[in-house]
Amino acid sequence: METLTTNDHLYLKVAKVIESQIANGVLKIGDRLPSVRIMSKEQGVSISTILQAYYNLESKGLIETRPQSGYFITFSSRKINAVPQKTTPEPTVSFNDAEDMIAEVYNNIANDNLIKFSLSVPSREFLPIAKLNKAMVEAMRKLPASGTMYESIQGNENLRRQIARWSINWEGNLKADDIVTTAGCMNALSFSLMAVAEKGDTIAVESPCYFGVLQLAKSLGLNIVEMPSDAITGIDPDDLKKALAKQNIKAILLTSNFNNPLTSCIPDGNKKEIVRIIQHYNIPLIEDDIYGDVYFGGRRPKCCKTYDDSGLVLWCGSVSKTLAPGYRVGWVAPGRYLEKIKRLKMYHAVGSTTIQQEAVARFLENGRYEHHLRKLRNTLHTNSLQYIRAISEYFPEDTRISRPQGGFLIWLELDKNLNSYQLYKEAIKYNISISPGRMFTLQDRYHHCLRLSYGMPWNEKINESLQKLGELVKTHKHS
Amino acid sequence: METLTTNDHLYLKVAKVIESQIANGVLKIGDRLPSVRIMSKEQGVSISTILQAYYNLESKGLIETRPQSGYFITFSSRKINAVPQKTTPEPTVSFNDAEDMIAEVYNNIANDNLIKFSLSVPSREFLPIAKLNKAMVEAMRKLPASGTMYESIQGNENLRRQIARWSINWEGNLKADDIVTTAGCMNALSFSLMAVAEKGDTIAVESPCYFGVLQLAKSLGLNIVEMPSDAITGIDPDDLKKALAKQNIKAILLTSNFNNPLTSCIPDGNKKEIVRIIQHYNIPLIEDDIYGDVYFGGRRPKCCKTYDDSGLVLWCGSVSKTLAPGYRVGWVAPGRYLEKIKRLKMYHAVGSTTIQQEAVARFLENGRYEHHLRKLRNTLHTNSLQYIRAISEYFPEDTRISRPQGGFLIWLELDKNLNSYQLYKEAIKYNISISPGRMFTLQDRYHHCLRLSYGMPWNEKINESLQKLGELVKTHKHS
Repeated sequence: METLTTNDHLYLKVAKVIESQIANGVLKIGDRLPSVRIMSKEQGVSISTILQAYYNLESKGLIETRPQSGYFITFSSRKINAVPQKTTPEPTVSFNDAEDMIAEVYNNIANDNLIKFSLSVPSREFLPIAKLNKAMVEAMRKLPASGTMYESIQGNENLRRQIARWSINWEGNLKADDIVTTAGCMNALSFSLMAVAEKGDTIAVESPCYFGVLQLAKSLGLNIVEMPSDAITGIDPDDLKKALAKQNIKAILLTSNFNNPLTSCIPDGNKKEIVRIIQHYNIPLIEDDIYGDVYFGGRRPKCCKTYDDSGLVLWCGSVSKTLAPGYRVGWVAPGRYLEKIKRLKMYHAVGSTTIQQEAVARFLENGRYEHHLRKLRNTLHTNSLQYIRAISEYFPEDTRISRPQGGFLIWLELDKNLNSYQLYKEAIKYNISISPGRMFTLQDRYHHCLRLSYGMPWNEKINESLQKLGELVKTHKHS
Repeated sequence: METLTTNDHLYLKVAKVIESQIANGVLKIGDRLPSVRIMSKEQGVSISTILQAYYNLESKGLIETRPQSGYFITFSSRKINAVPQKTTPEPTVSFNDAEDMIAEVYNNIANDNLIKFSLSVPSREFLPIAKLNKAMVEAMRKLPASGTMYESIQGNENLRRQIARWSINWEGNLKADDIVTTAGCMNALSFSLMAVAEKGDTIAVESPCYFGVLQLAKSLGLNIVEMPSDAITGIDPDDLKKALAKQNIKAILLTSNFNNPLTSCIPDGNKKEIVRIIQHYNIPLIEDDIYGDVYFGGRRPKCCKTYDDSGLVLWCGSVSKTLAPGYRVGWVAPGRYLEKIKRLKMYHAVGSTTIQQEAVARFLENGRYEHHLRKLRNTLHTNSLQYIRAISEYFPEDTRISRPQGGFLIWLELDKNLNSYQLYKEAIKYNISISPGRMFTLQDRYHHCLRLSYGMPWNEKINESLQKLGELVKTHKHS
């Protein structure tokens, strides 16, 4: 499941060994783990290391302590429900969006009493707010005119340099001059779409697809073809090849890592193959990599951009899912579309807010970002496992559950006869908000699917809300 | 010229009386003013008030002190050159933009050694930077999660309330809910254009027109009709009526107050008439009011929005010309297009940076903005008079000069045979940057015009640079 890296703490190594034995079925639900003393001898590490490892596994809901008895496995991959099936959207352009449903779900967002399973952002408890405030003050002190004057069109140079340095993590090898900063990742996608396509053109996306992308493309007058997608591996290069051979597709937009909403992650080998295909057809690929840094495995997955030597990949990112959504700090490395993107930014926005960019740059510069990410990844990983366990327990057995290896989201496939928009309406009465699957397509499908976010701290209230959701699904099913 | 308001200081009232006598020709160049003692008795005010008034007139270049002799008029409206003629663009759609010229002029912007007559922004010396920094820190302290989380789509509520309150100054009577915040004014214009027109549609603008608007419209695939414009009164309602009767125009975009680059200000009566016309034709009007607060007269000019009860006017503004260009704080009150604009903002940007908005709101709230604006207006007014005096002195007599009543800009019309792009290339050798007139049209015109900004503190270096420019024009003329 996870690979070990030399950076990991010793206790994490021990925990991961046990975790992989649970995943392989070597350890089964109900099995008792060796006592702390015995395990310490077996592994040749201290007792406190083993205690830490067990604590880590307990926090992920994988094991439990029973008083006077020891540690027991409570979680087994075998017991977990199946993964959602590969999607089969129509291969034609569709226009049937769910604008009103989206507006309804999002108008409820301001309600503070809601349990917002519908929102794909880190909860404020997970953000390093005090340190960010400090970085903002430092930025104002350091910037010429305290950041009150226009910055250069391309954006804060320090931030661009740090993103370039950071790109080593996915073998991106970017330079500061390859990057243009934007007001968040959607703004990067907006400029990218404007750069590569115009009204009447057709683009291809994954299905299901983040509704924001569908609405953005629609507002630019673009036609959309949805491609089949697998909950584990995303789109299949062969499907892409077929689509490009058959239709006049002007550009492709993918969320390659920890897709929203399907949670898939395209294997690096497939990314390489996808880049080979777009180079063959000379078609630009807009890569939304907003979740890439929030991986649960041993190392960051690569990007399509990693394999691109043609300049056809426009790689987009932001800190909205890791540091501060409200800072509106995003970027794009647009390859051969650099000049076009710079001009689009100048025409539509003139510049971006330089203070937040400088503050984020300082975070990346001095290791604070990596430190913060480690904590965030651990917390979200634990959350994801808690959710999967809870959903397996509370929802009907035939509920299919995606297996996020990063990000904030879980995609559920319920019984074909269930309608998740009806479920939304029922759940909102209990102050629980979910995202119905129909929001994520322009076709008449995914009515029986839904997206849940685990971006909130795990607690009894969350647990109860998932239990209530499960009850509503079961009631629904029998009505 | 200026009307008195009860808010003015006593010395300003005295100064304005003398100023209007100069404008009327009652006082002529070389006339000696009454001594401070006599004037004090005549006006029934203290000697120090008169001294302040004379100092104010001196700083505007209207009078001078001659040792042992007293105060003399140095400036007369009669002596000043003529105003540029009303423009006569072709009434058809044109596509011939000056993209490369614009890029050339703007690529030089980063050079710190340049005297940037080409840049329409307040110099950093005019910005209240320390107070803004303080407001930023206050904003972080006050906002939920210190402004790190997404704000509501419509934007910071406190800022929207303050803009609404402030709209009393131009009888706008806006409510907070009428307003959507944006990342600066260009971003407001971008959303507004997307809301009212789509690729292939034709819009009407003033000629000359700010090049940013021309480029934005072009990047959205819009066709542009340029309308005749007067350097004092802007577009004529009759011309607008003719254009609308003849062509299929989808929307109009105007800078009604202190136009960039022509510096015209549409008289309030004409604004009312323009709104009547667009209501008759049911055509939306995008009003760029970014310079409206920087007026030199006794009171703020009104807006087209003031007279709009149909919701057809989309009123756009920002603090980029008054407080902090780098904050990217702008807004639009889009009338009947409110829902459309909110959705466009959600699709293309998700949200805006709430910290800067809150900081600006606090500035507006506690009177700091009005206090700052009074100083800024006085300084810019003085600057504009210094420029006009210097240009009258250094440039050929047939140079036509606009008469800004607000804003940052002067528009010059040189001898028909002069080419201001050639002048740009000559001037840049002396580290002087200007904006050639050709940048402000899609037609083959304004080659003999140029735009100058007086947004920098007046000093000997500026004076010398204008003198050098004048010399270059004269050399050019005789070559």
